[in-house]
Amino acid sequence: MSRFAHRTGPIRLGMVGGGAGAFIGAVHRIAARLDGEYELVAGALSSTPEKARASAEALGIARAYDDFEAMAEAEAARADGIEAVAIVTPNHMHAPAARAFLKRGIHVICDKPLTATLDEARRLARDAAEADALFVLTHNYTGYPMVRQAREMVAQGVLGDIRLVQVEYAQDWLAEAPAPDNKQAAWRTDPARSGLGGATGDIGTHAYNLARFVSGLEVERLAADLQSFVPGRMLDDNAHVMLRFRGGARGTLWCSQVAAGEENGLRLRIYGSKGGLDWAQETPTRLWHAPLGEPKRRLTRGGPGTGAAAARMTRIPAGHPEGFLEAFANIYTEAARAIRAHRGGTAVDPAVSYPGVADGLEGVSFVAACVASSRADAAWVALP
Amino acid sequence: MSRFAHRTGPIRLGMVGGGAGAFIGAVHRIAARLDGEYELVAGALSSTPEKARASAEALGIARAYDDFEAMAEAEAARADGIEAVAIVTPNHMHAPAARAFLKRGIHVICDKPLTATLDEARRLARDAAEADALFVLTHNYTGYPMVRQAREMVAQGVLGDIRLVQVEYAQDWLAEAPAPDNKQAAWRTDPARSGLGGATGDIGTHAYNLARFVSGLEVERLAADLQSFVPGRMLDDNAHVMLRFRGGARGTLWCSQVAAGEENGLRLRIYGSKGGLDWAQETPTRLWHAPLGEPKRRLTRGGPGTGAAAARMTRIPAGHPEGFLEAFANIYTEAARAIRAHRGGTAVDPAVSYPGVADGLEGVSFVAACVASSRADAAWVALP
Amino acid sequence: MSRFAHRTGPIRLGMVGGGAGAFIGAVHRIAARLDGEYELVAGALSSTPEKARASAEALGIARAYDDFEAMAEAEAARADGIEAVAIVTPNHMHAPAARAFLKRGIHVICDKPLTATLDEARRLARDAAEADALFVLTHNYTGYPMVRQAREMVAQGVLGDIRLVQVEYAQDWLAEAPAPDNKQAAWRTDPARSGLGGATGDIGTHAYNLARFVSGLEVERLAADLQSFVPGRMLDDNAHVMLRFRGGARGTLWCSQVAAGEENGLRLRIYGSKGGLDWAQETPTRLWHAPLGEPKRRLTRGGPGTGAAAARMTRIPAGHPEGFLEAFANIYTEAARAIRAHRGGTAVDPAVSYPGVADGLEGVSFVAACVASSRADAAWVALP
Amino acid sequence: MSRFAHRTGPIRLGMVGGGAGAFIGAVHRIAARLDGEYELVAGALSSTPEKARASAEALGIARAYDDFEAMAEAEAARADGIEAVAIVTPNHMHAPAARAFLKRGIHVICDKPLTATLDEARRLARDAAEADALFVLTHNYTGYPMVRQAREMVAQGVLGDIRLVQVEYAQDWLAEAPAPDNKQAAWRTDPARSGLGGATGDIGTHAYNLARFVSGLEVERLAADLQSFVPGRMLDDNAHVMLRFRGGARGTLWCSQVAAGEENGLRLRIYGSKGGLDWAQETPTRLWHAPLGEPKRRLTRGGPGTGAAAARMTRIPAGHPEGFLEAFANIYTEAARAIRAHRGGTAVDPAVSYPGVADGLEGVSFVAACVASSRADAAWVALP
Repeated sequence: MSRFAHRTGPIRLGMVGGGAGAFIGAVHRIAARLDGEYELVAGALSSTPEKARASAEALGIARAYDDFEAMAEAEAARADGIEAVAIVTPNHMHAPAARAFLKRGIHVICDKPLTATLDEARRLARDAAEADALFVLTHNYTGYPMVRQAREMVAQGVLGDIRLVQVEYAQDWLAEAPAPDNKQAAWRTDPARSGLGGATGDIGTHAYNLARFVSGLEVERLAADLQSFVPGRMLDDNAHVMLRFRGGARGTLWCSQVAAGEENGLRLRIYGSKGGLDWAQETPTRLWHAPLGEPKRRLTRGGPGTGAAAARMTRIPAGHPEGFLEAFANIYTEAARAIRAHRGGTAVDPAVSYPGVADGLEGVSFVAACVASSRADAAWVALP
Repeated sequence: MSRFAHRTGPIRLGMVGGGAGAFIGAVHRIAARLDGEYELVAGALSSTPEKARASAEALGIARAYDDFEAMAEAEAARADGIEAVAIVTPNHMHAPAARAFLKRGIHVICDKPLTATLDEARRLARDAAEADALFVLTHNYTGYPMVRQAREMVAQGVLGDIRLVQVEYAQDWLAEAPAPDNKQAAWRTDPARSGLGGATGDIGTHAYNLARFVSGLEVERLAADLQSFVPGRMLDDNAHVMLRFRGGARGTLWCSQVAAGEENGLRLRIYGSKGGLDWAQETPTRLWHAPLGEPKRRLTRGGPGTGAAAARMTRIPAGHPEGFLEAFANIYTEAARAIRAHRGGTAVDPAVSYPGVADGLEGVSFVAACVASSRADAAWVALP
Repeated sequence: MSRFAHRTGPIRLGMVGGGAGAFIGAVHRIAARLDGEYELVAGALSSTPEKARASAEALGIARAYDDFEAMAEAEAARADGIEAVAIVTPNHMHAPAARAFLKRGIHVICDKPLTATLDEARRLARDAAEADALFVLTHNYTGYPMVRQAREMVAQGVLGDIRLVQVEYAQDWLAEAPAPDNKQAAWRTDPARSGLGGATGDIGTHAYNLARFVSGLEVERLAADLQSFVPGRMLDDNAHVMLRFRGGARGTLWCSQVAAGEENGLRLRIYGSKGGLDWAQETPTRLWHAPLGEPKRRLTRGGPGTGAAAARMTRIPAGHPEGFLEAFANIYTEAARAIRAHRGGTAVDPAVSYPGVADGLEGVSFVAACVASSRADAAWVALP
Repeated sequence: MSRFAHRTGPIRLGMVGGGAGAFIGAVHRIAARLDGEYELVAGALSSTPEKARASAEALGIARAYDDFEAMAEAEAARADGIEAVAIVTPNHMHAPAARAFLKRGIHVICDKPLTATLDEARRLARDAAEADALFVLTHNYTGYPMVRQAREMVAQGVLGDIRLVQVEYAQDWLAEAPAPDNKQAAWRTDPARSGLGGATGDIGTHAYNLARFVSGLEVERLAADLQSFVPGRMLDDNAHVMLRFRGGARGTLWCSQVAAGEENGLRLRIYGSKGGLDWAQETPTRLWHAPLGEPKRRLTRGGPGTGAAAARMTRIPAGHPEGFLEAFANIYTEAARAIRAHRGGTAVDPAVSYPGVADGLEGVSFVAACVASSRADAAWVALP
C-alpha cells in the first residue's frame, strides 16, 4: 500500500522542465488539469535555478526547486509531497530525472522519446521495472478516441489478417535552418541532447508507437534510409523506413520535418484481408473504415458504430471536435486511474491503457535500428 | 474597486445547474479548468436538493447548496466567497438565477439562449446593465481561433463589402421522438423550459450570433419558415430563415435538429466584393479564404498568414487540433481577463472580447422574430 | 415509323448556335461524340452568316447554313438529312429554333433554360407535345451517375419520408462587371436575350431541376429574395428561395454568381425520416449516405453498394473519375436510345430517362415565380 | 513526308485487342473519339478470329481482321488505310503487334507497361527509334491538367530544390483471389502474359512514370520489398520501394492491389526547399500548393493561378470536373498533334508532350529492378 493509500482528491503533481518558453511543458500542464485529476504543486522547471523559480512563480506553483534531485528528496520527505512527477526536459535528461523519483516511489509521467541513447533506455527500463512506482510515457496520440476505436476493431478481427501498416508523420517546421533563438529546434537538432535520432526520435517514435499500438503487431526487421536535407544539420530530418512485422505483415514508415506545407501530418492506414482503416490526426474525430466490398464508412468520435474503447476516451457529443489536448489529457487520466489503484494496491481496471517504459524502450530501439540500418545503406536490421 | 481587488490566483467560481447527467455543466467545468483561471468551490447543481448535494460531492465541490438563492446569499457573505458563477440550467431559470448573483456583485457566466422569453431577456439585460458585475454569455463558437481570424479579416476589409452571409447549423439528434429518459431532449423540446424556440433557440441562436460576430453586420429584417417535423413536437425542429442586413448584405440561416447524418454541422460562409471565407466547426482549425480571382487558401490555426486575434486564442502549434472545449475555455479565459481588470477597476485590454447580455438579448429577439414571422407565413419581421 | 426507321449507325445531328467563342456548343459537341452515338453533319452556328460558315469549316461540319430556318428546311428535304438538332443559342432563340425543327419531325436537344419568357415556354411545351419528334432538355447534372443513384435510393424509400431538400449552386464568375468582350457574360446578363432571370435562369433552373429530379417531389410554393449586387446589373445575380413541397417537405435553394471563390458549387442535400444524402458536383463520383443512427457511407461511382440506375450511366471502374462531360454525354446517349426507339415506333426502355420539355416549362415557371415573389417582397407564390 | 501529307480530317485509327469484355480497349476508343481527332476504321480486336469479327461488328468498325499481322499488311496497302494503331492487348503481345505496324510506318499508340520483359522492351525501343512512325505510350495520368500544372511549377523552380517525391497507387480489386471468369484479373496475375511484375507492372509503372514526369528527376537506385499476399498469387500484389534520385532527392513508391477500400488511389506529393505539391487522381481537378511559410493554396483546373501547360489540356470552365477519360483523351490529342506535324515533316509544337517508348523502357526497367531488388532482400539496385 502506498503512503497515499487514503488520499482522495486530485493527485499532487510535480514537474521537471517546462519553464518559460517550453512548448511541451505547457501541454502537460493543461493535460493534467483538464479532467481535474491532478494538482501541480511543485516544480524544477529549468536547469537554470533563477529561471526555475521565476517560471514556478509565474505559473503559481507553490514549491519551486533549483533541480530535480533536490525536489525528489524534499517531496519524498513531505507528508503532502507529490505523488507523481511529469518530466518534460530534453531527451538526455529523462533518465536521470526519472530515476530520482522512481527510486523514491514517486510515479513518473515522462515525455518521449524515453532517452537519448539505447543503453540509457535499457537501464531505465530495468530501473522502472524494479521501482514501486508507475512509469507512464506520453505517446499522446494513443489517447485519441478514434485511435482507441481503431485498435479495438483490429483486436476484434474486423480487418481480418493484417497485411499492411502504412504510417507517416510529416512536418515542415525544420525545413530550413532554425533561427538561433528557437529553443525547441535547438535541442531537437543537437545529438548531445536529442540522441541519435532527429526526426526519427522526435516524431518517428510517435509514428512507430502508433502503428504498434493500433495493429498490435511486432516489428521484426526494418530497413531505413535517413537523410539530413538541411545543410549543417547533424541529425536526420527525414526518414524512409520499410517494416516487416512478425507474422507476415509489411509496412512503411515515413517521418519528415522538411515536408513543406505539412504541419503535424500523422496518418495511419491499416489494411487487412477483410477491410481497411484510415486515421489522420489533423482530423482526429474521424476514422474511415472500409469493409472489403462495401462502401467506406466514416466513424466519428461519439457517433454511431463506435465502441467502448473510444467511449472511455471522450467527453462531449459527436460533431464537437476534441483534439490534441484532450488526447493528451486522456493519457494523464488513464495514468490517474492506475495511480489511484496503486494507492490501495488494488488491480487496475483492465480497460485502462497507457504507454509505459517498454514502449519507450521500443521507441529508442526503433531509432537505433533506423540509424544502424541507414549507416549500412538501408540493410535490414532486426529489432530486439 | 471590487472586494476582491487584491486577490491573485484562480477565480473562485460557483455553478447553478449542471448536476449528474447534464451535458453542458460538464463542459463549463472543463472550460473553467483548462487554463487554470478558475477554481470551482460552490454549487447549487440541481433543483432537487438531494441531487444537488450528491452531485457536488461527486465532483469534489466544497460547498453545496440546495438552491441558487441560498448560494448567492451565503457566498456573498463569505470573505472567501465566489467571485463568479456559471449558470447552466434550462433556459427558463437563467434570468432568476442570474439576477440573484448580479445584484450581489457576483459575475455571471451564463449559458445560452439568454432566457426563455423576450420580456425576460429585456428585463435581464436592464438588470445586468445596472449591476456592478460582468455578464458573459457562452456563445462558445466565437471562441474558436479561426472564427476570430475570420472576424479580424472582415474587419480589416479583406473581403471588401460584404454581400452574403450564409450560416447553417444542422444536427440530427432530434430526428426522432427522444427516449423518455433523455433529459437533454426533454427540456429542449418543452416550451415551458426552453421558451418559444426549439432548434431556433438551441442552435439557431448560435448560428445567428456567429454570423453577427464575424460579419459585424446587423440584421434588419428576417423572414422565417419554421417546421416541427417529428409528430407531437411542440417546438420547431427545423427553420429556414432569410436575412436582410443593414447596409444591403443578405443571407440565409438554416438550423435543424432533424437533418439525418449531421452531428454538429455549424458552418459559416461570408462573401464580399473582394473575397470569401468558409469555416465549419467540425474541422475548426481550418479557415478557407478565397481572394476573388486567386486560388483558395487554407488558413490553419497557428499557421502562416494568421493574425493576432487568432493567436490570442490558441495554445499549441499548427496541425495539432484544438476543438470545442478549447474554444469554450477561450470564452472563460476572456471572461477571466475582464474579471481581473474589474477587480482593480482598471480598463480591460481592448483585445478582450466575449459575448455578453446584449448578444443574449439579440438571440432571444431572433427567436421571437422567427416565431412571429413564421406565424405570419414567413412575412418579414424587423429586428429591434 | 420514322423516315429513318431502317437507319443504323450514328444519329445525324445538326447544331444551331455554338460558333467560335461559345462555351456550351463545344460541350454539346463533345457530349454528342463521346459515346459515338451521333455524327455532327450540319450547322447554323451563328446568327452572323459569315461567322456561321467559318465556324462550320473550322469544325469540319459538312453542311453550313446561314440560319436555322434554312437549315431546317433543307435538312428535312434531304434523304441523308439530320435526324436531330442541338440548340445552343442564347435563351430567347431556343423556342423559334426548336419550333422550326420539331414541326419537321426533327428531334430537338435544347440547352436550358427552355425559353426567355414563360409565355414562350408554354407555347413551346404545347408545340413539342404535338410534334412527332422528341424534345430533350440538357439539364446535364441529371446525367451524373451518383445523381441517378441518389434518385434511385429516394425512390426505393431508403431515406423514408423526405423532410428537407437543400440545394445550392454557387459561382463567382459574375462577381464583378464582366469585361465588354465576354460574350458568355454579355447575353446572360441581358434581359432581352436571357429572360427574366439572371442567376435564377442560368443556374437556379439547374438547381431546381436537380432537386426535383432526385427528390421526386413537386414544389407547391416558393418565397424568393433576389438581388443584383453588381452595380448596373439588370438581372438577379443572387437568389435566396424557400421551398414548400407538396406533401410537407420543405427546402431552400440558393443560387449565386457573386459568391467569391466558388466555381461551380452545385450541391444537393436531402434528409428524410430514415436518412440523408449529400452530393456535390465538384466531387461528383461520391455520394454520401447517412442512414439515421449509423455511420455515414461514402458511395462511389462504380463502387460497392451502388445500383442499376448509376451503373447504366458509367463507363469505367470506380476510382477513375468521370465528370461533367460524361454526365452531359449521358443525356445525349439517353436521348439516342429514345431516338432509336422512335425510329421504329417501338417503346423506349423504361430505364431511359432524360429531362424534357415539361422540365423546361417547370424551370421557366420557377424563374417567373422567383421574380414575382421577389417583387412582392418575398411573398409566397404558387407554382402552376 | 508521309503518304498522308495532304490529309485533313480525323486520323484513321486501327485497334489491336480491345474486344468484347475488355476494359482498356473501350477507354482507348472513347479517348480517341472525345476530341474528334480520330476515326476508328479497322480492328483486330481479339486473338480469337470469330470474336474479333463479332466485336468489330458490334462496334461498327468497318474493317475487321483476324490478326494484327494481316491488318498491318492490308492497311498499309490501302490508300485509305489507317494512319495509327492503338494496341490494347495483354502486355506480352505489345511488342510483336507494335513492330508489325511500326515497320510499315503506321504510328503506334500502345498501352502500358511497354512489354512483359526487359529484353523485349529494349528491342522494341530500338525498333521504334528506327521506325518512321511515332510511338506513344498511354501513361494516361500525365494527361491530367493539374499534373501538367505540377510539372510546369517544378520546372519553373516554384518548389526550389526537390527533396522528396512520395508517390503511391493503391487499389483493392485483387485483395482476394479473383473469380475464374475475371479476364482483367486473369492475365494481370499471369506471369506469361503480364511479365515479371504484378502490381508493379500494372500500376507501379504508372506511379513511377508520374513521379518522373512531374519531378523531372531520374531515379538512380531503388530498394524494393515485394509481396504476394493472396495465397497462390504468382506475381507481386504489393510493393514498397525506396527511391534515390540523381542529385540527392529521395522518395518512396507504394503500389498495392490489396489495400482494402482503395479504388484508384494514385497520389503524388513533391516537397522542395521552397514548397510542396500534392495531387490525387480521385480528385484530379485540384492541386495543392504549399509555398513554404505561406498558407496552402488550392489550385483548380481552369482556375486562377494556373498556367499554360494546364490550359492546353482542358476543355471546360473551372469547377466542372474533367476526369480520367479526358486525361486519356489528352494523350490521344497530343499524339494527334504530333501525327499531323509528322505528315508534313514539320516540327512538332514544343508544347506537345506525351509519353513515348523511352518512358516505356524505363517502366519495364523499374519493374525489373524492383524484382531484382526484392529477390536480393531489398538491396539497392541501380537503374540503367
